[in-house]
Amino acid sequence: MNKNTPLSQSLQYYRQRSNQQLAQWLSAQPYAEQPLIEAMKHGTLLGGKRARPFLTYVTGLMLGADYANLDTPAAAVECIHAYSLIHDDLPAMDDDNLRRGQPTCHIAFDEATAILAGDSLQTLAFEILASGTLSESGEKYRIRMVQELAQASGAAGMCMGQALDLAAEGQEATLQQLETIHKHKTGALIRCAIRLGALAAGDKGAEILPQLNQYADAIGLAFQVQDDILDVTSDTETLGKPQGSDLELEKSTYPALLGLEGAKQKAQQLYQEALQALDAIPYNTDQLEVFARYVIERNN
Amino acid sequence: MNKNTPLSQSLQYYRQRSNQQLAQWLSAQPYAEQPLIEAMKHGTLLGGKRARPFLTYVTGLMLGADYANLDTPAAAVECIHAYSLIHDDLPAMDDDNLRRGQPTCHIAFDEATAILAGDSLQTLAFEILASGTLSESGEKYRIRMVQELAQASGAAGMCMGQALDLAAEGQEATLQQLETIHKHKTGALIRCAIRLGALAAGDKGAEILPQLNQYADAIGLAFQVQDDILDVTSDTETLGKPQGSDLELEKSTYPALLGLEGAKQKAQQLYQEALQALDAIPYNTDQLEVFARYVIERNN
Repeated sequence: MNKNTPLSQSLQYYRQRSNQQLAQWLSAQPYAEQPLIEAMKHGTLLGGKRARPFLTYVTGLMLGADYANLDTPAAAVECIHAYSLIHDDLPAMDDDNLRRGQPTCHIAFDEATAILAGDSLQTLAFEILASGTLSESGEKYRIRMVQELAQASGAAGMCMGQALDLAAEGQEATLQQLETIHKHKTGALIRCAIRLGALAAGDKGAEILPQLNQYADAIGLAFQVQDDILDVTSDTETLGKPQGSDLELEKSTYPALLGLEGAKQKAQQLYQEALQALDAIPYNTDQLEVFARYVIERNN
Repeated sequence: MNKNTPLSQSLQYYRQRSNQQLAQWLSAQPYAEQPLIEAMKHGTLLGGKRARPFLTYVTGLMLGADYANLDTPAAAVECIHAYSLIHDDLPAMDDDNLRRGQPTCHIAFDEATAILAGDSLQTLAFEILASGTLSESGEKYRIRMVQELAQASGAAGMCMGQALDLAAEGQEATLQQLETIHKHKTGALIRCAIRLGALAAGDKGAEILPQLNQYADAIGLAFQVQDDILDVTSDTETLGKPQGSDLELEKSTYPALLGLEGAKQKAQQLYQEALQALDAIPYNTDQLEVFARYVIERNN
């Protein structure tokens, strides 16, 4: 991939690579014929943009890491993301029947299997990160990567974000509360995807983590602002999930707090912040730049 | 603890030590005032025998490890166990209201919080194992411990056991099927508790893993046989959970397949196998021997 490769092609390449990796890990599980494994595959391999693996790959490649050494953190982060979607969709949580244009895991299988599939995908994430291939320079950071993935996805990160989000349903959150929710619920794992890509590249990556954080936090929040905008302006078919579901769950959103135009301005402002963060990075940041634009221009 | 210390005192000591460690990890979480953290504490700190931490401690101590270096694997394994109980109790799974004489997590809080508390406790297990204190000889095996914990608890271990158990409800399982279920559902994590204790002691521990496996597999299964026996012969108050619940869920059990006397003989036979395995271990196995007897003699 060079800087002239259109993003759609680039995204597709990394999506395919990521899917292949995930399929390999899942096929290597014993008891492959059990519904639990089928449910894990359903929740992981059917559709999805693979934004997080993309970020892991392009960050690591920018810093000189090989593709093969980025497969490990990319697959681990995507397993955490997939598990979180399966559990978020459960009747006791967001109660969603449709995801990526497919029946959600507990609809396609049953609730118990969906809970266990999510649980097992979380475990698989840590298994992959602890046992997948890494280069020598990345190996030095393997334990650090496990620490970071845990911090990003547990009660200090993604899970707390989902808990805060559920607690805020039916209440009007302030802009600050909304940012806290999303910083944890989606931001923490997006940041982690980028950081693990950097750490897999070794010392060079570890040195620029602060600048990468700035970029990650801006696009992480922009991602959510755009999600909120699309929930208002798009349609169910394009989204692959029910349009208007935020409104139905009485969730606070950026368009609700800032108006549709205000939300679009917010997304633009975050885009500019992301570009500024990239200015401070002395590597070829083209792919990260193109991705930031994609975040606020995408329609699903 | 020496060989003359009665097991009840020894169990109590390790239980207290383990609880202290778990409380420290949980109190160090940000957002301590959130229901999610309260639910994690509820599921972890209220009661429980701490059989797994006990096994980690006594195995490691037998091999010369310090207490302080065993706190890390002991706490990690117990977090996995606690998460599994929270999720197993959910309405979509075993639908239990009572555990350790207390309302289960989804009763004390709500279902969404219980799902997230289980999820976050699983993450915490890996965070603890990746970042807790280890001695230099244990540090060498840290990544290996993360791998082993993941393999024991995910779709190749504990989660698969729960899936197989749910699938077998209402059907009469064969003795072999029953063993496969329990080998995964409870056996894998008990074995892991012992193995992590050994690995935390370094090379000496790694060398006797095969012998420890034999002991672990015997007491792991004996633990389940005794659980099945108690579900028939004990009462709800002593058990801290509803007596007769296996029958109600139409679960296959050892007393159902072998008769009560046959099940007791099976437990005895497994006890003898455990003792034989210990004979091959050139260290002071007193505590492991006493624990094996406790497994088949306990009344809750």
